[in-house]
Amino acid sequence: MIKLAPSILAADFSKLAEEVREVEAAGAELIHIDVMDGHFVPNITMGAIVVEALRPITKLPLDVHLMIENPERYVEQFAAAGADYITVHVEACTHLHRTLQLIRSTGAKSGVVLNPHTPIETILHVLEETDLVLFMTVNPGFGGQKFIHSVIPKVKKLADIIQEQNLSIEIEIDGGINEETIIPCVEAGATILVAGSAIYNAPNRAEALQRIKAAGERVLK
Amino acid sequence: MIKLAPSILAADFSKLAEEVREVEAAGAELIHIDVMDGHFVPNITMGAIVVEALRPITKLPLDVHLMIENPERYVEQFAAAGADYITVHVEACTHLHRTLQLIRSTGAKSGVVLNPHTPIETILHVLEETDLVLFMTVNPGFGGQKFIHSVIPKVKKLADIIQEQNLSIEIEIDGGINEETIIPCVEAGATILVAGSAIYNAPNRAEALQRIKAAGERVLK
Amino acid sequence: MIKLAPSILAADFSKLAEEVREVEAAGAELIHIDVMDGHFVPNITMGAIVVEALRPITKLPLDVHLMIENPERYVEQFAAAGADYITVHVEACTHLHRTLQLIRSTGAKSGVVLNPHTPIETILHVLEETDLVLFMTVNPGFGGQKFIHSVIPKVKKLADIIQEQNLSIEIEIDGGINEETIIPCVEAGATILVAGSAIYNAPNRAEALQRIKAAGERVLK
Amino acid sequence: MIKLAPSILAADFSKLAEEVREVEAAGAELIHIDVMDGHFVPNITMGAIVVEALRPITKLPLDVHLMIENPERYVEQFAAAGADYITVHVEACTHLHRTLQLIRSTGAKSGVVLNPHTPIETILHVLEETDLVLFMTVNPGFGGQKFIHSVIPKVKKLADIIQEQNLSIEIEIDGGINEETIIPCVEAGATILVAGSAIYNAPNRAEALQRIKAAGERVLK
Amino acid sequence: MIKLAPSILAADFSKLAEEVREVEAAGAELIHIDVMDGHFVPNITMGAIVVEALRPITKLPLDVHLMIENPERYVEQFAAAGADYITVHVEACTHLHRTLQLIRSTGAKSGVVLNPHTPIETILHVLEETDLVLFMTVNPGFGGQKFIHSVIPKVKKLADIIQEQNLSIEIEIDGGINEETIIPCVEAGATILVAGSAIYNAPNRAEALQRIKAAGERVLK
Amino acid sequence: MIKLAPSILAADFSKLAEEVREVEAAGAELIHIDVMDGHFVPNITMGAIVVEALRPITKLPLDVHLMIENPERYVEQFAAAGADYITVHVEACTHLHRTLQLIRSTGAKSGVVLNPHTPIETILHVLEETDLVLFMTVNPGFGGQKFIHSVIPKVKKLADIIQEQNLSIEIEIDGGINEETIIPCVEAGATILVAGSAIYNAPNRAEALQRIKAAGERVLK
Repeated sequence: MIKLAPSILAADFSKLAEEVREVEAAGAELIHIDVMDGHFVPNITMGAIVVEALRPITKLPLDVHLMIENPERYVEQFAAAGADYITVHVEACTHLHRTLQLIRSTGAKSGVVLNPHTPIETILHVLEETDLVLFMTVNPGFGGQKFIHSVIPKVKKLADIIQEQNLSIEIEIDGGINEETIIPCVEAGATILVAGSAIYNAPNRAEALQRIKAAGERVLK
Repeated sequence: MIKLAPSILAADFSKLAEEVREVEAAGAELIHIDVMDGHFVPNITMGAIVVEALRPITKLPLDVHLMIENPERYVEQFAAAGADYITVHVEACTHLHRTLQLIRSTGAKSGVVLNPHTPIETILHVLEETDLVLFMTVNPGFGGQKFIHSVIPKVKKLADIIQEQNLSIEIEIDGGINEETIIPCVEAGATILVAGSAIYNAPNRAEALQRIKAAGERVLK
Repeated sequence: MIKLAPSILAADFSKLAEEVREVEAAGAELIHIDVMDGHFVPNITMGAIVVEALRPITKLPLDVHLMIENPERYVEQFAAAGADYITVHVEACTHLHRTLQLIRSTGAKSGVVLNPHTPIETILHVLEETDLVLFMTVNPGFGGQKFIHSVIPKVKKLADIIQEQNLSIEIEIDGGINEETIIPCVEAGATILVAGSAIYNAPNRAEALQRIKAAGERVLK
Repeated sequence: MIKLAPSILAADFSKLAEEVREVEAAGAELIHIDVMDGHFVPNITMGAIVVEALRPITKLPLDVHLMIENPERYVEQFAAAGADYITVHVEACTHLHRTLQLIRSTGAKSGVVLNPHTPIETILHVLEETDLVLFMTVNPGFGGQKFIHSVIPKVKKLADIIQEQNLSIEIEIDGGINEETIIPCVEAGATILVAGSAIYNAPNRAEALQRIKAAGERVLK
Repeated sequence: MIKLAPSILAADFSKLAEEVREVEAAGAELIHIDVMDGHFVPNITMGAIVVEALRPITKLPLDVHLMIENPERYVEQFAAAGADYITVHVEACTHLHRTLQLIRSTGAKSGVVLNPHTPIETILHVLEETDLVLFMTVNPGFGGQKFIHSVIPKVKKLADIIQEQNLSIEIEIDGGINEETIIPCVEAGATILVAGSAIYNAPNRAEALQRIKAAGERVLK
Repeated sequence: MIKLAPSILAADFSKLAEEVREVEAAGAELIHIDVMDGHFVPNITMGAIVVEALRPITKLPLDVHLMIENPERYVEQFAAAGADYITVHVEACTHLHRTLQLIRSTGAKSGVVLNPHTPIETILHVLEETDLVLFMTVNPGFGGQKFIHSVIPKVKKLADIIQEQNLSIEIEIDGGINEETIIPCVEAGATILVAGSAIYNAPNRAEALQRIKAAGERVLK
């Protein structure tokens, strides 16, 4: 089974409650929240204030993707605001093991994110501390970018390791997901798929979300 | 005449359009937008995505306060998103004169902000490039803090310089403003007053806004 | 009355308890602890571990001078370790007012330090939050340097402001203090004098300490 | 044969000479010195001043672990102070090869340290410049943490490479070492074991040190 | 066929046109330009102003090696100045994939550089975006250093991958190249060889260049 | 008497010897060298390699303006390369007093530079360590910018202090100097004037240099 996580980066920020309720009604399984600090990535987007505002609006897990430097400084704030998943970039963490432990200590699920070029060797020693690995299939910073196919073998490689070692880690993919690009993602082993503009810019969002999800689920049959 | 600028940092982020329209209807003259990057200040809040979303919602000027390091990197993005005022911290600008010029070159009004401890000597050589000086009467980073009275003499000093040199610079104050603290601010020469929790946390926001404004205007009579 | 604060930077680190007890017995009034992080200054010296170890050794106030970047990150740790005074550099604090408040909130006395070239305009708006101003009369980073006389007028200027405004702020001087240089310091208004090598490198430390102190007290008669 | 390196981070800083002599008498083979700058790790501990003070106190090699950013800035200072081993973090060195060469040029033995999550691929091209590899089995920054078992396969992998290539490199492990955790470490190929609280917090330190060492040596028989 | 790229870091900066024309006449195939910012490497050398000045002087491709932090900030400036190749360090790029795309978007060929210790795992996921891989066989920062042989297996490994995957990527080596060290480089698969002092400090530069090149080409026969 | 210092930033970098000899012959009194690191200012230009190349070319003093962060790291390199004046930005120096002392210790003359917005209060305590104060009348980073008139009162203020205190400090101005803007500069007390494009872009450089200088000297008659 796969889960779709609409990214509110593509939503209308003047009426987030409405935008979130719409995708929840349409069958979204998580709400993806892209936090950017203008230092780790060249854009500033939103902080814990948004997590806090959405917490009472939806029953869906809030999947907070921290595209920020030294994310350990803000883990507790996001957890307190209501994050269910907190994912941090391996490129941003000198003490990755400690940061993942910190996330779990708050009660949230711990995730680690890899930029398109980052090898998975960098995370193999922290799999025990990790609930979710998020692969970027675009360069983080902006919505609406083109899917990078060369990431897929990396996903497959991790999926194999997870299976061999019988680990309980979810694989998520973010960047350029639509009803075509979701196919190799699911084939490679991803179970959570983030989609931003493909949903929020569609004329009929519910229909778009369901079409993308269906494309992914056909792979699994 | 004084102008009230409600800060949306205190608003409900799940329905910003509504929150902004409410204060506009109540007589607000600007909408204050607190951008924080988690580096210059210990909090991350919002970015140009919020400015862009609010631009079609309101006719009021959007007053964007950049609490970010090296703000010159993002000036053009905020201007393109619809900011009318862009204010940068003197403590964050090695090349303050150039950054103020850059703001004006986008068509926005240029502002410079001083932390509570920062002396006004630091801005006296850029007054010609400045449309607005914003004095912080709390330490920036969070809403709901207590007004720092020792900033007031600094405001008075600048107001005197502006008058002596016959400059056309607005004075804004942000931090802990309510119907009591607004009085010394207006006495000292401030004409734009930011208020966050005093408005958005009030049982009747329109009434709160008008009461604060009235308290300020009584000073001028 | 003046107080001498021997700096343990000049002591023998293999037997700090002994070194501290010796100067306490000789009449020292504070123990000065120079914390350096190798970033704010070009040397690394000691951390809260030393404060913690000395706390049970002496009844004297521990006067902790943080020569570190973003000292707000460590204020609580040093307070918990037993610091009585915590002083931070104005050059290291973007949010100086907040950091001084933070120090006081721990129960410690708050101090602000100025490098030799730093003008006092930078601290005039936080005097209400300040219990102690420390003037460097050497460039911080190492012991055993030569006293910089050009700092003295700055001390005098602050002493005048303190008197005029009837404030309760102590003035401390650190750097190159001996029985000659103490004289202009006390004349200018300093009441706490740090001395490192002039005490710890002297053949008879107790005698050296008393001689320096006596030289300072003669000024006051 | 294995060597125990007590970490003075767990010792009483008011009487380091005594603390060092005690473990030397008890059979310690190196003295481990944890230098932290509050930037690379979230704690500040001690600098070259401590190395200098201990140099005349003990004949044991001083094993200096630099948990600091850009350690190349301080290598020469620590060597001059008397360090026998200087180890730097691969995560802190953009020019790791040069820094290891610099360490050797001072006459000290060169070491490289890996955080728990860091893969050994990062050091395989500098083995010729390296006298010692230190594996962290806790996240560096504080004493008294719990041993991370998932580091052990990494140690084994390097031990195999060292044997295959017939290199002369020592393997050291630091973090949570006691008489139980030492066993997998020695099995994996470590020959220098750092122990802090397991020795210094024990009621009988000499006995604790010998018991831990004996547990390690039993593995080798 | 191999190509020699003389590095102007070793040339006389008072008459660069002459220095460049001389090696062009002697058979150089590229001009290598070492840009250093004093932050990524401990030296400052030259910027786009030099690229601009040399562009009209020579028909040879200008091969610009950016030894600078966050090189994405300057890619467009160097391209506009006339760079044909722009190479960036993997150690300096959090978003390596994006930076390589940016280089290509300017019309220049994209290159990625590895420090001596950096494993090639770090670049395997961006080979599709890469026109050239540059291996450092000295630590970058200065001319005139000694060739590091342990880099060669890394070069061979990449050459094998390029052949297996039938990619069109050039391999360049920079550091300590002379008529002896060029041999293992070419054997391992390098086709562009940078030489600085071996050419510019030679009594007869044309002869030196041709001798080095001939030594390399003999390997290919 | 005033001195003209042509800035080679505006010269042709492919033939610097020629460019420098031309202005020397035309009556230049210093050669101004603009070192930029791409961090303190948004441009990278040149390093000590250029100073070294020009040292044997001219008898004129080389006036090196370091627009770099933490300039203390490179002072000795520039002095060894042949700099006669080394000027550092007050905005770049946490320990300004020490850096000025360091410059003098190399035998070079020490200078401090102020950005257009920087108040002179920041340098009043280091005048004894200073041989030259350089006022920027453009924002540093690029040649060919427009003169900022609002800097002039600051120059005048320092000139008065120098006279009152009978100090021996030269005043230099850099940015947008031509035969018109030189007039208020000399009136305010500047004696060294940097000119870049006004000389190097002129059809007749010698004539341009002499015309600018003559305009300045007319003020003094």
